[in-house]
Amino acid sequence: APELERKSSQESSSSSEKGDVITPWDVSAEAATGVDYNKLIVRFGVKKITDDLVDRLERLTGKRAHPMLRRGMFFAHRDFSQILDRYEKGEPFFLYTGRGPSSRSLHLGHLLPFFFTKYLQEALDVPLIIQMTDDEKFIWRSDLTVGESKKMTKENMKDIISVGFDPEKTFIFQDFEYMCPPFYENIVRIWKYVTGNQARSIFGFIGEDSMGKAAFPAIEAAPCFASSFPHIFKGRKDIGCLIPCGIDQDPYFRMCRDVAPRLNSPKPSLIYSKFLPALQGSQCKMAASDANSCIYLSDTPKEIKNKINKYAFSGGRPTVEEHREKGGDCEIDISYQFLTYFMEDDQRLEEIRLAYSSGQMLTGELKKIAIEEVTRVINEMQSRRVSITDEVVDLFTSVRPLKYTF
Amino acid sequence: APELERKSSQESSSSSEKGDVITPWDVSAEAATGVDYNKLIVRFGVKKITDDLVDRLERLTGKRAHPMLRRGMFFAHRDFSQILDRYEKGEPFFLYTGRGPSSRSLHLGHLLPFFFTKYLQEALDVPLIIQMTDDEKFIWRSDLTVGESKKMTKENMKDIISVGFDPEKTFIFQDFEYMCPPFYENIVRIWKYVTGNQARSIFGFIGEDSMGKAAFPAIEAAPCFASSFPHIFKGRKDIGCLIPCGIDQDPYFRMCRDVAPRLNSPKPSLIYSKFLPALQGSQCKMAASDANSCIYLSDTPKEIKNKINKYAFSGGRPTVEEHREKGGDCEIDISYQFLTYFMEDDQRLEEIRLAYSSGQMLTGELKKIAIEEVTRVINEMQSRRVSITDEVVDLFTSVRPLKYTF
Repeated sequence: APELERKSSQESSSSSEKGDVITPWDVSAEAATGVDYNKLIVRFGVKKITDDLVDRLERLTGKRAHPMLRRGMFFAHRDFSQILDRYEKGEPFFLYTGRGPSSRSLHLGHLLPFFFTKYLQEALDVPLIIQMTDDEKFIWRSDLTVGESKKMTKENMKDIISVGFDPEKTFIFQDFEYMCPPFYENIVRIWKYVTGNQARSIFGFIGEDSMGKAAFPAIEAAPCFASSFPHIFKGRKDIGCLIPCGIDQDPYFRMCRDVAPRLNSPKPSLIYSKFLPALQGSQCKMAASDANSCIYLSDTPKEIKNKINKYAFSGGRPTVEEHREKGGDCEIDISYQFLTYFMEDDQRLEEIRLAYSSGQMLTGELKKIAIEEVTRVINEMQSRRVSITDEVVDLFTSVRPLKYTF
Repeated sequence: APELERKSSQESSSSSEKGDVITPWDVSAEAATGVDYNKLIVRFGVKKITDDLVDRLERLTGKRAHPMLRRGMFFAHRDFSQILDRYEKGEPFFLYTGRGPSSRSLHLGHLLPFFFTKYLQEALDVPLIIQMTDDEKFIWRSDLTVGESKKMTKENMKDIISVGFDPEKTFIFQDFEYMCPPFYENIVRIWKYVTGNQARSIFGFIGEDSMGKAAFPAIEAAPCFASSFPHIFKGRKDIGCLIPCGIDQDPYFRMCRDVAPRLNSPKPSLIYSKFLPALQGSQCKMAASDANSCIYLSDTPKEIKNKINKYAFSGGRPTVEEHREKGGDCEIDISYQFLTYFMEDDQRLEEIRLAYSSGQMLTGELKKIAIEEVTRVINEMQSRRVSITDEVVDLFTSVRPLKYTF
């Protein structure tokens, strides 16, 4: 089996006793400002996204970079420049991302990578593949049946489609329904070249974990390889892959990059986001397991307003006087953080930052703006969501060529 | 995860320091008479096949039991009587068996369970499903590509079809080509309900083993469940399963029986064979890894003759005089052992046993009879084998209903 890419592969990602915990299943930070992403870059062995790289992307695509990229929410990468090389040379690649389904409507934290993915697809004009890991959820959640997992996945798909993807350019699949020989072949190839020890070291599995947990990483890794989708890529193996996702998913793709040469396939490139903080503060990411930490796609304007007013952690001062004097702390203020994700206008955002930091703007005013912005985003999604019928889902999930020729 | 069926589940099947080693990957015996099957019955927690059970099978089916059953080569079972109950009540069940493909033509040891399976199918008249684990071979053999494994599997299928199966009643599949949602669902269900510790305890996997080895047992277990084959069983979950196979496969099905209730499916029943001894003697089973230990389906009459004359371990005495006086030992004589597998005529077999044991028959004469019998069996197979084209294979592997209604 291949050498692991990451130097500190002996250390399980989940076993760092001190500091931030970042695994595909658990994210928590020590500091009120949230995860120390600079440390994470070193720990995971990824690279920081530099201004140069963003400039190059803008130059090549002729499109302004997405706010989440300009403002550093997408902050790290593996071999992103190789994807830009491919783009420049006209060599083929595709986008791959995915979700583990949730029992409820998706929340803003789930949707972020999809907003960004939509921008990437429009800027780069390449096929997009979205994996829904209904099998993963079934394996991890003891109370869930296969049928329930499949059903809630269908609903989650509708949420994702509401982001505005193009069915001519996008293939969405759920593992329980797509599983087929070409996909399975790549899964088995990955299984063959990673030892149980390596998987334990990467993912921190223990003996009491189910066989399914140990088998699953290959199932999330296999869609990195174009040969898993012959209906789109005609069995070609030389097609690159760019994966926009949360940094917590890095273990899967570290493993996948390690084995890629054994599959005679290019290593996938990655572009990683930070976590959207929970309403309660940046120590935790928005998590479906705590409804009050999240803004859901299904929330009404009133719910959004109440949640932000009631729960959004404030960087303001205890009294108006003190606030006017010392100013608020944007670094820990969740309403402000939300604006950095969702407000398009750089200039207005900077004005807000200055006004709040200087004490000129009060917490109530900042929350009001955050409520407006979040409500706008959710409203736009909801207006699309109502027209996403089962038939529309079928458009995205049917096994077919996309509009690109390979 | 469920309690394991076998009492001594803590002890790995492969870790018994003393005595016979019987795992799906390794079989060897201490004694010249071969594996101590009575001890194995206790160790695995299976039941001996009694005369009562054989009588009941004969009575219910109105057919004489197969020589391998009458003579105790199929010697142990789990819940075989429940299958007879189903047969008696007209409740549905199917036969399931399989093979890990070999790089060469199959040998007699491979073919035995299929001879017996053919008898069972004719006696019971139920669907037969044969799994070819091309994925397993790819995972276990470092030198093998997916394409090579699939190709040699196709050749092995032709050998198996030559046993004389009926395409209207038999579905043969290879994992790399059949993998599909209903099959995968059952695999994932099994994964969910067996822990890594349990799998290690059952199969003796170590950390250096690939993820694939740890994932594979569910893939051999899943075809026990009729819902893996909706094209045949219409999604019904109440259909029983009888598995004729070598006793070394018991670990898979022990695991499978443990999880069956979690899948709301009946536990599979099993009927287990002893191993066909290697030409060199009963300490080892016939193994494709040692060509001189085997009679292959592709062997010519001359090769068969030479192999038996040269290698077949003899229970005869060093000199003719001593042989005449003390007689030969049928228990360790491989030529005689072969006759017990392949000679239909009970009376003639008994005459041979008496003649050889008493010294009246010499080793050369016994070998001559063994050569005749083995050549007859191989000839019959070969004459069918020549007409098994790719199109015939397609008849068996196409995903379709069988002639039975469910």
